[in-house]
Amino acid sequence: MAKAPETEHPVEAVGWAARDTTGELSPFKFSRRETGEHDVQFKVLYCGICHSDLHMVKNEWGFTQYPIVPGHEIVGVVIEVGSKVEKVKVGDKVGVGCLVGSCRSCDMCSQDLENYCPKQILTYSATYTDGTITYGGYSDLMVADEHFVIRWPENFPLDAGAPLLCAGITTYSPLRYFGLDKPGMHVGVVGLGGLGHVAVKFAKAFGAKVTVISTSESKKKEAIEKLGVDAFLFSRDPEQMQAAAGTMDGIIDTVSAVHPIIPLINLVKSQGKIIMVCAPEKPLELATFPLIVGRKSLSGSAIGGLKETQEMIDFAAKHNILADVEVIPIDYVNTAMERLLKSDVKYRFVIDIGNSLKSA
Amino acid sequence: MAKAPETEHPVEAVGWAARDTTGELSPFKFSRRETGEHDVQFKVLYCGICHSDLHMVKNEWGFTQYPIVPGHEIVGVVIEVGSKVEKVKVGDKVGVGCLVGSCRSCDMCSQDLENYCPKQILTYSATYTDGTITYGGYSDLMVADEHFVIRWPENFPLDAGAPLLCAGITTYSPLRYFGLDKPGMHVGVVGLGGLGHVAVKFAKAFGAKVTVISTSESKKKEAIEKLGVDAFLFSRDPEQMQAAAGTMDGIIDTVSAVHPIIPLINLVKSQGKIIMVCAPEKPLELATFPLIVGRKSLSGSAIGGLKETQEMIDFAAKHNILADVEVIPIDYVNTAMERLLKSDVKYRFVIDIGNSLKSA
Repeated sequence: MAKAPETEHPVEAVGWAARDTTGELSPFKFSRRETGEHDVQFKVLYCGICHSDLHMVKNEWGFTQYPIVPGHEIVGVVIEVGSKVEKVKVGDKVGVGCLVGSCRSCDMCSQDLENYCPKQILTYSATYTDGTITYGGYSDLMVADEHFVIRWPENFPLDAGAPLLCAGITTYSPLRYFGLDKPGMHVGVVGLGGLGHVAVKFAKAFGAKVTVISTSESKKKEAIEKLGVDAFLFSRDPEQMQAAAGTMDGIIDTVSAVHPIIPLINLVKSQGKIIMVCAPEKPLELATFPLIVGRKSLSGSAIGGLKETQEMIDFAAKHNILADVEVIPIDYVNTAMERLLKSDVKYRFVIDIGNSLKSA
Repeated sequence: MAKAPETEHPVEAVGWAARDTTGELSPFKFSRRETGEHDVQFKVLYCGICHSDLHMVKNEWGFTQYPIVPGHEIVGVVIEVGSKVEKVKVGDKVGVGCLVGSCRSCDMCSQDLENYCPKQILTYSATYTDGTITYGGYSDLMVADEHFVIRWPENFPLDAGAPLLCAGITTYSPLRYFGLDKPGMHVGVVGLGGLGHVAVKFAKAFGAKVTVISTSESKKKEAIEKLGVDAFLFSRDPEQMQAAAGTMDGIIDTVSAVHPIIPLINLVKSQGKIIMVCAPEKPLELATFPLIVGRKSLSGSAIGGLKETQEMIDFAAKHNILADVEVIPIDYVNTAMERLLKSDVKYRFVIDIGNSLKSA
């Protein structure tokens, strides 16, 4: 019989967990494994709240294992390392993103694309190699194989940097892979939330002209004045959309609500690329003619591999790219979830675990 | 007032035209322009019947201009050239495909991608630069700017080669552009008709492993024995489809009937590509999750530029790639159209214009 979360491993840990599809989070005692040869144990200091945490605590994607401790934008300070760990040492700042495991041997893994490994292990609510359930960063302590640990750049803020471990790599990777990382490119970003505002920052850092496409005209002023985007398209205004037709090299679409895709295909030039990084719950309606007549592509992209995640964090530190965050204590997390559901945050909640969650 | 087709130009021509949405074709007297400085005039010898001819004669795409003389897989022998023509001389064999004009100056044209020029002029039922309607190859005579004329390789069959001018380039171009032209690639071809059987031949010539995916299990024997495909998937058998999941590098989808796309996305590996070369009349239903979790793409592709079309014909001649054709006289064309509608042809009708259409 499986042991209880509190006793299945030797290291005591505390976190906040949801027990059922209400998604309501509350304090939870569990345990972490002993620090293995290749493991890094670290004290969690900050953890970002990703929109997928919201889906997962309510089992909206259908594969949640309760109790669930969410959180995959985790940063902290190393307190113990296994005998064979080479990447970091005690006292170093580190991060863990969406993955804590993969097969390490398949075609994808051998190309440093652990994020496309069929046997990837998610940071929370997944089954680890030892058969136990993974718990995420809404907790005081993390243990992970060093391969899945990111070295944190010196003096790079922990709180506003944490969201990059998911929101950052999710937008950085497609900008790079689909060739939208060249100066002079015109990049569209659909949706100005947790992912979108980070996509803007990376695209700007690559030297692109950036246009935000949004259903909220109210975001225009801030997008231009605060985030420095070059243009703003109110997607419900057909005239604005028509005037911008065929002007973009590519679009990063960060919106998970069902939305029309043809207007976006019309915005890109011939050979332009639309990249979806969020999956709407219902299928899209897609007329293929607009793709055919311009050799356009609709693609998906999911986070990034570990090598690229490290590259992304180093790039962000060099270019001073941080998420705009609202730092909250752990006991505010349920309210934060409610506000996130209403997009009432600019642009990412980050939980100050270090100062608000009492360790075991 | 616009002149009548018969008198608007000085050179008498005859063809077969449809006058209305019945699509019924019958003899038609019209005229061709005088051979301009950059023009090539040629006697049409063969013209392939493309599935889009069928859509166009019935105005199923909504932009047909009647009377319409279809045909954009046209080969023949040069009988006159303009003073500045350098590409060919009288007596040479030549071809004309889907395009007879483009702006020659836009971003696409300057990359030899006239097929994506917003001002491209289709070979039939389009408005030419002089304001007259273009007429296709179901006719005794063609006149075209040399830029849009393909040099026919020595000793390369005219009848079975003609369909390559549309079916050939439509499949060759995406195989090349999307990187499916490398030995050892595993390429899927959906639909074994005019386009599909040529896609198979090009993919085999590139050294790929080729799997045909079809709703007609009856095509299996011929696909394997005659076309030499490596595998055949009956797409209505979920077990066969599941067994082949994640094995292909890319798929060329040649089917214009509405069909499910998710099973195709499941067939390709991570980073695999689905390329649509036919536009179903109704929008597809597309769940984006399968694209995202494997960084997969759904793209469109439309014919090819003139430079690439020449390259394709030269490649076909070198590798002895020809369409499998049923050669018919012009007065069989309405019957051929009916049979084409029922997919009752292996795999392309070609009209023997030279021997069956009496010149003016």
